[in-house]
Amino acid sequence: PTTAAQLPRPNPALWTTKDHRIYGAPSPDLILGPDDCIVHVRINGICGSDLHFWKAGEIGTCIVDEDYILGHEAAGEVFMAGSNVTHLKPGDPVAIEPGQPCEECHHCSIGEYNLCPDVAFSGAPPFHGSIRRYHVHRAKYLHKLPPTMTFTEGALLEPLSVVLHAFERSPLRLGSPALICGAGPIGLIALAAAKASGAFPLVITDVDASRLEFAKQFVPECETFLVPIQGLPVEHATAIQKLFLGLGSVEPSIVYECTGVQSSVHTAAFACRRGGEVMVIGVGRAVMDGLPFMHLSLAEIDLKFINRYHHSWPFAIRLMQSGYVNLKPLVTHRFKLEEAVGALETAADKTKTSVKIHIWDD
Amino acid sequence: PTTAAQLPRPNPALWTTKDHRIYGAPSPDLILGPDDCIVHVRINGICGSDLHFWKAGEIGTCIVDEDYILGHEAAGEVFMAGSNVTHLKPGDPVAIEPGQPCEECHHCSIGEYNLCPDVAFSGAPPFHGSIRRYHVHRAKYLHKLPPTMTFTEGALLEPLSVVLHAFERSPLRLGSPALICGAGPIGLIALAAAKASGAFPLVITDVDASRLEFAKQFVPECETFLVPIQGLPVEHATAIQKLFLGLGSVEPSIVYECTGVQSSVHTAAFACRRGGEVMVIGVGRAVMDGLPFMHLSLAEIDLKFINRYHHSWPFAIRLMQSGYVNLKPLVTHRFKLEEAVGALETAADKTKTSVKIHIWDD
Amino acid sequence: PTTAAQLPRPNPALWTTKDHRIYGAPSPDLILGPDDCIVHVRINGICGSDLHFWKAGEIGTCIVDEDYILGHEAAGEVFMAGSNVTHLKPGDPVAIEPGQPCEECHHCSIGEYNLCPDVAFSGAPPFHGSIRRYHVHRAKYLHKLPPTMTFTEGALLEPLSVVLHAFERSPLRLGSPALICGAGPIGLIALAAAKASGAFPLVITDVDASRLEFAKQFVPECETFLVPIQGLPVEHATAIQKLFLGLGSVEPSIVYECTGVQSSVHTAAFACRRGGEVMVIGVGRAVMDGLPFMHLSLAEIDLKFINRYHHSWPFAIRLMQSGYVNLKPLVTHRFKLEEAVGALETAADKTKTSVKIHIWDD
Amino acid sequence: PTTAAQLPRPNPALWTTKDHRIYGAPSPDLILGPDDCIVHVRINGICGSDLHFWKAGEIGTCIVDEDYILGHEAAGEVFMAGSNVTHLKPGDPVAIEPGQPCEECHHCSIGEYNLCPDVAFSGAPPFHGSIRRYHVHRAKYLHKLPPTMTFTEGALLEPLSVVLHAFERSPLRLGSPALICGAGPIGLIALAAAKASGAFPLVITDVDASRLEFAKQFVPECETFLVPIQGLPVEHATAIQKLFLGLGSVEPSIVYECTGVQSSVHTAAFACRRGGEVMVIGVGRAVMDGLPFMHLSLAEIDLKFINRYHHSWPFAIRLMQSGYVNLKPLVTHRFKLEEAVGALETAADKTKTSVKIHIWDD
Ligand SMILES: NC(=O)c1ccc[n+]([C@@H]2O[C@H](COP(=O)([O-])OP(=O)(O)OC[C@H]3O[C@@H](n4cnc5c(N)ncnc54)[C@H](O)[C@@H]3O)[C@@H](O)[C@H]2O)c1
Ligand SMILES: NC(=O)c1ccc[n+]([C@@H]2O[C@H](COP(=O)([O-])OP(=O)(O)OC[C@H]3O[C@@H](n4cnc5c(N)ncnc54)[C@H](O)[C@@H]3O)[C@@H](O)[C@H]2O)c1
Ligand SMILES: NC(=O)c1ccc[n+]([C@@H]2O[C@H](COP(=O)([O-])OP(=O)(O)OC[C@H]3O[C@@H](n4cnc5c(N)ncnc54)[C@H](O)[C@@H]3O)[C@@H](O)[C@H]2O)c1
Ligand SMILES: NC(=O)c1ccc[n+]([C@@H]2O[C@H](COP(=O)([O-])OP(=O)(O)OC[C@H]3O[C@@H](n4cnc5c(N)ncnc54)[C@H](O)[C@@H]3O)[C@@H](O)[C@H]2O)c1
Ligand SMILES: [Zn+2]
Ligand SMILES: [Zn+2]
Ligand SMILES: [Zn+2]
Ligand SMILES: [Zn+2]
Repeated sequence: PTTAAQLPRPNPALWTTKDHRIYGAPSPDLILGPDDCIVHVRINGICGSDLHFWKAGEIGTCIVDEDYILGHEAAGEVFMAGSNVTHLKPGDPVAIEPGQPCEECHHCSIGEYNLCPDVAFSGAPPFHGSIRRYHVHRAKYLHKLPPTMTFTEGALLEPLSVVLHAFERSPLRLGSPALICGAGPIGLIALAAAKASGAFPLVITDVDASRLEFAKQFVPECETFLVPIQGLPVEHATAIQKLFLGLGSVEPSIVYECTGVQSSVHTAAFACRRGGEVMVIGVGRAVMDGLPFMHLSLAEIDLKFINRYHHSWPFAIRLMQSGYVNLKPLVTHRFKLEEAVGALETAADKTKTSVKIHIWDD
Repeated sequence: PTTAAQLPRPNPALWTTKDHRIYGAPSPDLILGPDDCIVHVRINGICGSDLHFWKAGEIGTCIVDEDYILGHEAAGEVFMAGSNVTHLKPGDPVAIEPGQPCEECHHCSIGEYNLCPDVAFSGAPPFHGSIRRYHVHRAKYLHKLPPTMTFTEGALLEPLSVVLHAFERSPLRLGSPALICGAGPIGLIALAAAKASGAFPLVITDVDASRLEFAKQFVPECETFLVPIQGLPVEHATAIQKLFLGLGSVEPSIVYECTGVQSSVHTAAFACRRGGEVMVIGVGRAVMDGLPFMHLSLAEIDLKFINRYHHSWPFAIRLMQSGYVNLKPLVTHRFKLEEAVGALETAADKTKTSVKIHIWDD
Repeated sequence: PTTAAQLPRPNPALWTTKDHRIYGAPSPDLILGPDDCIVHVRINGICGSDLHFWKAGEIGTCIVDEDYILGHEAAGEVFMAGSNVTHLKPGDPVAIEPGQPCEECHHCSIGEYNLCPDVAFSGAPPFHGSIRRYHVHRAKYLHKLPPTMTFTEGALLEPLSVVLHAFERSPLRLGSPALICGAGPIGLIALAAAKASGAFPLVITDVDASRLEFAKQFVPECETFLVPIQGLPVEHATAIQKLFLGLGSVEPSIVYECTGVQSSVHTAAFACRRGGEVMVIGVGRAVMDGLPFMHLSLAEIDLKFINRYHHSWPFAIRLMQSGYVNLKPLVTHRFKLEEAVGALETAADKTKTSVKIHIWDD
Repeated sequence: PTTAAQLPRPNPALWTTKDHRIYGAPSPDLILGPDDCIVHVRINGICGSDLHFWKAGEIGTCIVDEDYILGHEAAGEVFMAGSNVTHLKPGDPVAIEPGQPCEECHHCSIGEYNLCPDVAFSGAPPFHGSIRRYHVHRAKYLHKLPPTMTFTEGALLEPLSVVLHAFERSPLRLGSPALICGAGPIGLIALAAAKASGAFPLVITDVDASRLEFAKQFVPECETFLVPIQGLPVEHATAIQKLFLGLGSVEPSIVYECTGVQSSVHTAAFACRRGGEVMVIGVGRAVMDGLPFMHLSLAEIDLKFINRYHHSWPFAIRLMQSGYVNLKPLVTHRFKLEEAVGALETAADKTKTSVKIHIWDD
């Protein structure tokens, strides 16, 4: 199958460049392999890493060398199914799991396909992402949505999957206190996931008061902690621990770090109960300084990390379907596909206080 | 401290005998040790094991040799505190954790104090239980209730602790399907706990349709499966698995068995997904026949068991406090302490369709 | 590739039938797929399941419906490699991992490929096994042997893999006591693995004194316990626990059951320390009676099961290569491929007191 | 019991001061409580932390404010037993577990008594240590030695316990590769423990070639890697990984960091396989810079830490008793109690290339 698939409508896409520009232009032709589907993408979410590829041109070892199409939080309808595809047919609503691993290496073989060194992650250079009308993807990584689920929810399964993977590696017991550092989309979803796990009390931090207000509306059971600009991590951590004690709880044994900011990781380390663990979801600079090594050692606090997810979509779908979490309020702004450039500009504009921006197409 | 504590009111109690009678009569005098408190018990829940000690005179190695006082699901107010007690004072609302372990043996030392061979479990012979006005107990095993919690909730912390211990040993991931076998108080609380853990879909079984109706009202998200009197466990299990598949889910990897009935354990084993586990909470006859050994072996399904709980009260209190679970609807009947005999008779009367019966005192 | 591979020599094989006969006859033609290799099998071990397929005609859901070739413990040299095969070439020494899973199902995807419902296990009907000169196999499931390893050792990797999988699911801590029930090849390898795990003291049981003598020579650090024909499992278990206590140890928290015999599983359950686990490696009758249910419940002893292995060969190879275990003494008898029928007859003859019988070819 | 115990001989001790001196002088009088024993200490090992308290005057929050007696790696004979002590009597050989926790706090209650904030650790200021003839200690933390074990071995149980605790938190599977960073006493014992766990291949690093020579003699199966003074951690790590690959292995999924040196922790992080973990046993400066944060995140490598041990002595005793490890070669120098100052000076003198120095008394 080396001839381009015939598409009924144009295929506009959102491109970025190595010199840090974004622009709208048609997608390259799509080649439908026998194990692939072409999806009419109905919703795309914008994530901090899209902005990062645009503005910084790289994340870790992924570098924008040539123009490519952004986007990896998507849901849509199957438009065309390859000849080997049996579990999907045109018209089926699906969420796109962006990573397409090699399925041959050791990590794939043991089921940790997120660690596959040869993953083709659509939306990370050089692999074209989903901010276009039609996107081609290996069918195995398209997850059929239940009839009750909207495309908006379908596109939120990607950040939910990040959080579910973190919670799989660092689960919360029923009735255990939980601390979440950072109230961006990931922190907010972690907050919802902590509640859905039966954790209580819940405390979420941010340096931005408006994010905390949003958090309080989003999960009213939570307490918020505004991280002061002044002061040391150990001081912030002490104040956070006091907040837990004042709520009749003990200190949190699990802390989800959702900023990737150095001082916040330090605060997480100091705020954690002895014998607990800090699950670092946030990513940031290549190197971290000032880690409170002796504190971690004496308190036997583990630092754990995640890189995306594996096998999370079915869990995310069932969780969303249950109604225990409602992530739709996270979508604060919506743009048409034709206005995708504006969507990214809004996401990048701190004065706009967006949480999650969605790009839609009919 | 070998003289009896002075009590302001009589101390009526509910006794049982080795010849399977129950009667009301005054409690023996209470001796307040320096590490103890005397609690004015405000609520006592009745549990199947109370009925079992009454009707069968023994559970496992605990045998009713002499008359003793029943009851182990209690909450009340501290009336008097021993001289060493610092974390409690008269008037404090507390829940009673009935097991008082030796604190010296290996199991106590490693924190598994539920496995302490020398535990003094109040309510299991020969240790007097809490169905009396005043009960003396080691203060360390009295858990202060938050001001917002009622005594009714406080007395429900005991069965909740059973379930939390089972969930600690066999936790549910967010968005994972869960099966609960048996819709008695333990199964119903397991159902609520499964929902509070973010599990979905939820299926609960019983042989009694009225219990399933109750379950559906109690946790509307659940699906119910009426176990037919006819048919084999493997057939019931196949039908249960179909129910999950019909809900768009896979089979449950965790099954909570909450009946202790042999055929239900077999059904649980067949209904579980390959590679999963059956958490057997239910207890029953000393010996089990007909275990599907080869099925468990080929499918690598583990059988896990629990014996009560350790360190569960703080978790149970926080979970109850969160409002994520509301166990109060389980209390279908209430009796005054003076009518405790009637309470037990009602609990034993299958036609009365009680779920949880509470005995109260002012 | 649908034409038969050209072989330089005849390809004699050992067949069994649904009416419980065995006979030597030529293998069917071999078809070499692009992902396969043809292996000149140099050593085949005989296992109890070979005898079981011969004598009983079935294990679980695997039924001998048509004549097929036995054998699944093999090592040899690559004779011919399919066109896609890159990690092997003719002449390479390899061990054969008999199970060839579907690589598509959920269990394969999460790395538990031993639970794949569509595994093609060579040596279990209807899939031809390796007791023939030339055997064709998916190259991915051929593991290259280090130059220092003999084919004899290579063929012992299969039962070692069984044990390693059990030890992965139920590992032993350094300095923890361990009990092994049954001193057949699996129990003996479990004994060696327990020693290699740093467990001490080690106790192994059998009903057959000669097997225990063998065990004592094989792993001199072990203590042996001859299970009397008389007496109850709980009595045998008490005697075993006393043996541990007499050695200055506590009771074993991990028991490896390697017989599949009902009374031995019961003994294992009673001999285990409170809070421990019984890893049931042995397989037996479809249904087990007399399980000490209340004992398991009160003592919180888990029953775990395994079905073969996944990803074990690299671990088995490194362990064998280390020299920490020496399994070669297990091979008590050797037969030429042409005498394979005699090999199986000897294995089935209890008076011959074989442990592991190897069939070799040059 | 507030009067001093009568001792038959003088009680010389090794003291250190806040101004970084050491001197020999009599121990203060010993008060034997009812739960204590007085031990005639026969062997004391010297550890880096003894030198650190002497030379630096503090470790973490433990500060040398007043003169106190050093030593925490000891074994000896019970000389006198308190009135409540039942498991020991005069003449019994015992190893001393130095930490005496509060037994009341949460961490003690759940069995993690190493994290007890109120532990009285003999040998850490202000609690007098065991480098004296007679030492008083809570009997519960004296572990009876089997008759076959020497006092030299008994005193080695303390560093072995450190390693066993690390291995409990980060165990090695049979046949898995293992990397140990640092070939001091802790790294060497970790090496022996890795071998005793069945790990292979084994690689140990150091910056000091003589330590690596020692390691190779101590555990001949190991490979050594001399960390060059030049070069970056990532480069050293790449070379270490190549060493594993060259041995036919994969990269190590578990790395034991036994130096506490910043660059070595970085090397450990880079040398670890994706999805693995670095168990940081080494302790060092309060704060660590240059942590390869993004590498840990992308590779999902966890950093785990330990603070000493809990419940390790029985395991250490059984392991030592088994003969699987022989730690006696670690003792390179021996001094009489009267020459304890010389022992410490030798330990501090890098030109003396000691590994473990023992102080003995008859
Ligand atoms: N590990 C993974 O696989 C993975 C996947 C997705 C996202 N991420 C990372 O997760 C992090 C969160 O993602 P997001 O989309 O929510 O990002 P975001 O930037 O929208 O949110 C981060 C939040 O942290 C707050 N913050 C900044 N400094 C803080 C401090 N010192 N203390 C407390 N709060 C502070 C910010 O105000 C912001 O609200 C990012 O680092 C992102 O790259 C990781
Ligand atoms: N392990 C522990 O520490 C612990 C603690 C408390 C209770 N328990 C046990 O848990 C079990 C449940 O307690 P409970 O108070 O809910 O008991 P219960 O008797 O009120 O409830 C059991 C329910 O199971 C149903 N049932 C009976 N046979 C069934 C079958 N074949 N299939 C499905 N359902 C069936 C009954 O109709 C009933 O509704 C009991 O065995 C109890 O002894 C164990
Ligand atoms: N789960 C798996 O994937 C798997 C894989 C391979 C083998 N197996 C099973 O493991 C078991 C052991 O295999 P094997 O090859 O060593 O078999 P085997 O028959 O050679 O050895 C079993 C040993 O158990 C002894 N025994 C019998 N009854 C006993 C009793 N009551 N107490 C103590 N010992 C008793 C026998 O005397 C014999 O020595 C078999 O059941 C086999 O089918 C399971
Ligand atoms: N966590 C705990 O509970 C605990 C307990 C005991 C000891 N420790 C710590 O464990 C560590 C090891 O103890 P030890 O007694 O063996 O100490 P040690 O100082 O004798 O040995 C450390 C070894 O590391 C080597 N080394 C230094 N820099 C290195 C580098 N960059 N790469 C590789 N090797 C390097 C040294 O040459 C030395 O041989 C120390 O930090 C000690 O404080 C921790
Ligand atoms: Zn891969
Ligand atoms: Zn105890
Ligand atoms: Zn499969
Ligand atoms: Zn403590």
